[in-house]
Formats: sequence, structure tokens, C-alpha cells
Amino acid sequence: MIEAEAEELLQDSRALLTGTLTLAVDAPVHVLPQIARFCQRYPGISVKIETGNTDESLSRLYNYQADLALLGRDVDDVRLLSVPLPDDQLLAFVARDHAWAGRESICLADLDDTPLVLRETGSVTRQTLEQEMRQAGLRIRPAIQVEGREAAREAVVVGIGVGVVSAAEFGADARVYAMPIRDCTQRMKETLVCLKEQSSRRVVATFLEIVRESLHANSKNA
Amino acid sequence: MIEAEAEELLQDSRALLTGTLTLAVDAPVHVLPQIARFCQRYPGISVKIETGNTDESLSRLYNYQADLALLGRDVDDVRLLSVPLPDDQLLAFVARDHAWAGRESICLADLDDTPLVLRETGSVTRQTLEQEMRQAGLRIRPAIQVEGREAAREAVVVGIGVGVVSAAEFGADARVYAMPIRDCTQRMKETLVCLKEQSSRRVVATFLEIVRESLHANSKNA
Repeated sequence: MIEAEAEELLQDSRALLTGTLTLAVDAPVHVLPQIARFCQRYPGISVKIETGNTDESLSRLYNYQADLALLGRDVDDVRLLSVPLPDDQLLAFVARDHAWAGRESICLADLDDTPLVLRETGSVTRQTLEQEMRQAGLRIRPAIQVEGREAAREAVVVGIGVGVVSAAEFGADARVYAMPIRDCTQRMKETLVCLKEQSSRRVVATFLEIVRESLHANSKNA
Repeated sequence: MIEAEAEELLQDSRALLTGTLTLAVDAPVHVLPQIARFCQRYPGISVKIETGNTDESLSRLYNYQADLALLGRDVDDVRLLSVPLPDDQLLAFVARDHAWAGRESICLADLDDTPLVLRETGSVTRQTLEQEMRQAGLRIRPAIQVEGREAAREAVVVGIGVGVVSAAEFGADARVYAMPIRDCTQRMKETLVCLKEQSSRRVVATFLEIVRESLHANSKNA
């Protein structure tokens, strides 16, 4: 009887009728369309998204607390199977009533000694901006330091300073206006990873397959 | 000479020409207008906003890592000086192409067995919704569990389920539509706290004064 039940559970899980899928992500937006597709196809699977920076997400993966992790930078580790997502440019954004709202683009020199809303020091967005400004010999002037994109956007909305964000993470907030930074050379990269030893688990392989499908569809549309 | 320098530093700090102000907040939006005013008046003070849930913010305050904390629930502790902020209703929100978009309001029964985008278990928003649904004898059906408001909004945008958020935290994202939950009896409360022993420090007292000014102005306008 117990054996039969175990067998049944196993078959359910093979068919993805029950089970869990946990993703540790730095920014949920990059994989949410794929998660939506997964939830639709496999409504019996309980999906969890945990948000943290790249180091936290990676540590959750290594500790088997997450099945997949989405990272803001490449991690070179033979234990990992990596799927790189399309890269993305850096934008500056301001409140709707800011003098720059409506501009087609800015250049790094526009940010020189300009009050900025900066993210926490661990943020890849902040590190990228700092590298670009340093290479151009420009001065960063922090108006405030905040944790996370949400706090950054709200600080920009109330006029504390100019914010910086990757295009895919900008969202659709009508209170802010975004423009490309013309001479910014680096692009933001997101990589989806799992442990190689876990990559043949049905739930992991299925999610990766959905991601690859959508990458393929996007590259055909581009 | 060193004495003179120390005296000068002390005077600077009395006049808030230099120094730092660190706030640990659950949701930055509730105090950002006041922070913007503070940054404008005292540009020499370096302001930091750290985001975490109520327990994390409180622990940062007790460990002197934050000067002030913004909490999603009342904390009864004689060591704390508390300033309650205006309370706020709970909203349900959906993607713009959802059948409910355009509705004036919903009731709790509409959420019965409806796929929901739920926050992490520590979230006060989630706990409030769970209490209301339980009291009404209704069933919560989680479509996905996510960490933070940003992930919740993005999950709603791609159509995974219906989200719940406090009105002040809804923001202005054109991709989602929010409506009040008519029969929801509880309101969301935010409280700004500092350690009583720290409340006379110039930087803390000045920030609290700005918050009290704005509460007074709002109550006169209401």
C-alpha cells in the first residue's frame, strides 16, 4: 500500500502534477513571462520566487534552497549549467517634472557631479555606473543611497536625484521618464543557472525548456 | 589644534552640515517625501535607506545600525519613541487586460479560490489578507509566492494571478489596475520609531520634526 502510494507520488512528480519550483532571483522581471507560462501549464506545482542579490541567490542554489537562480553577472563554476539571457542597456531616469524629462538621451558627462539616487554597494547596476564614470574621469555625487529598485524609483519620483536602471527593469511607472546613456559602453547581463547535478530533474529541465523556447521565439522575432 | 578641529566637527554636526542618517524601512514610499525635504534642507548629510521586513528593520535599530525604523505593525516597547503614520486601506490589483480591470471595487468573496499572487509569509500585507479571508470562511488559492512588492507587481502584470497591496504602496504602474476590497475591515498601519535614548540627537530630532510637520499639514488639508 505504502509502496503503491510512493509509486503514485513519483508518477505525479514525473508528470509535474505536484511538487515545488523555487527560483532565487536578483530581478524577477527577466523570467516572469516564462514563470507565467510554467504556472499555466503546471498549475499543481507550487512556485516560489525569492528575491536577493547575486551572491545571496547563488548561495541559495548551492544550499539546495533554490532549484534555479537568476544572476546579474557571469559566474564561472563547472558545477553550474548556465543559460545567458539577452543583454540590456543602462538607462538614466528622472521624475516627470525634471528638466531632463522628454530628452532623447544623455551622455555620462551629464551625470558628472549631478545628485544621484544610488543603489546599495552590492548592486551590479551601481558597480557598472561607477566603472563607466571612473573610466570617463567623471565624479559621482550621491544624493541618497537606497536598497533595491523600488526604493530607487520612489526616491527619484520625489525629486531626490537622477536614477540609473537596466532597460528591462525600468517597468512602466508613469511618474518617471527614462532615457539611454549614449556613451555607456557596458550592457547588463542576466544569466539563469542551475546545478548540473539537478539539471535532469523533471521540474528543472521543464522550466529550462520553457526559457529556451522563449529565447528562440524572441531571436526569430528580432 | 585637534581640540579646535573636534569642536568644529561638533558644531558642523549640531548644524547638520555633515553626518549620516540611516533609515531601515519596510516600504520606502511612506517617508520618501519627508526624506526628500530633509535632503534638500541638509545636503551635507549622507542619507541611507535600507529595506527589509519589520523584524529586520527593528533589529537594525536595536543594533544601532539604523537611526530610525519604519515598521508595518505596532511594536510595544518602552525603549521606543513611536510616531504613527496615517493608516491605509488594502487594495486588490490585476493586469490591465484582466476581466476585473475597470471594476469599482470587489468583495472578499471574489477572492475565494481565485489564483492569488501571495507575498512571503513574513509580509504584514499577506497576514492581513489571510486573517480577513479566514474570518469570512473563504479559501486562499496561491498561484505563486513571491518576495517583495516589486516581484508581486511583475507577477500580476504577466497574468499569474490577483495581487493585494496597501493603497499607499500601489504606485503608478500603468500595466496594473487596483480596486478597494469593500468588506476588508482592517487597515494597514505604518509606524516610524527611534530609540528614546537617541531621540534628542540633532539628526534624529530634525527628521522627526519634518515628519510631524507633514502629518500636521496633511491633517489640515484633509
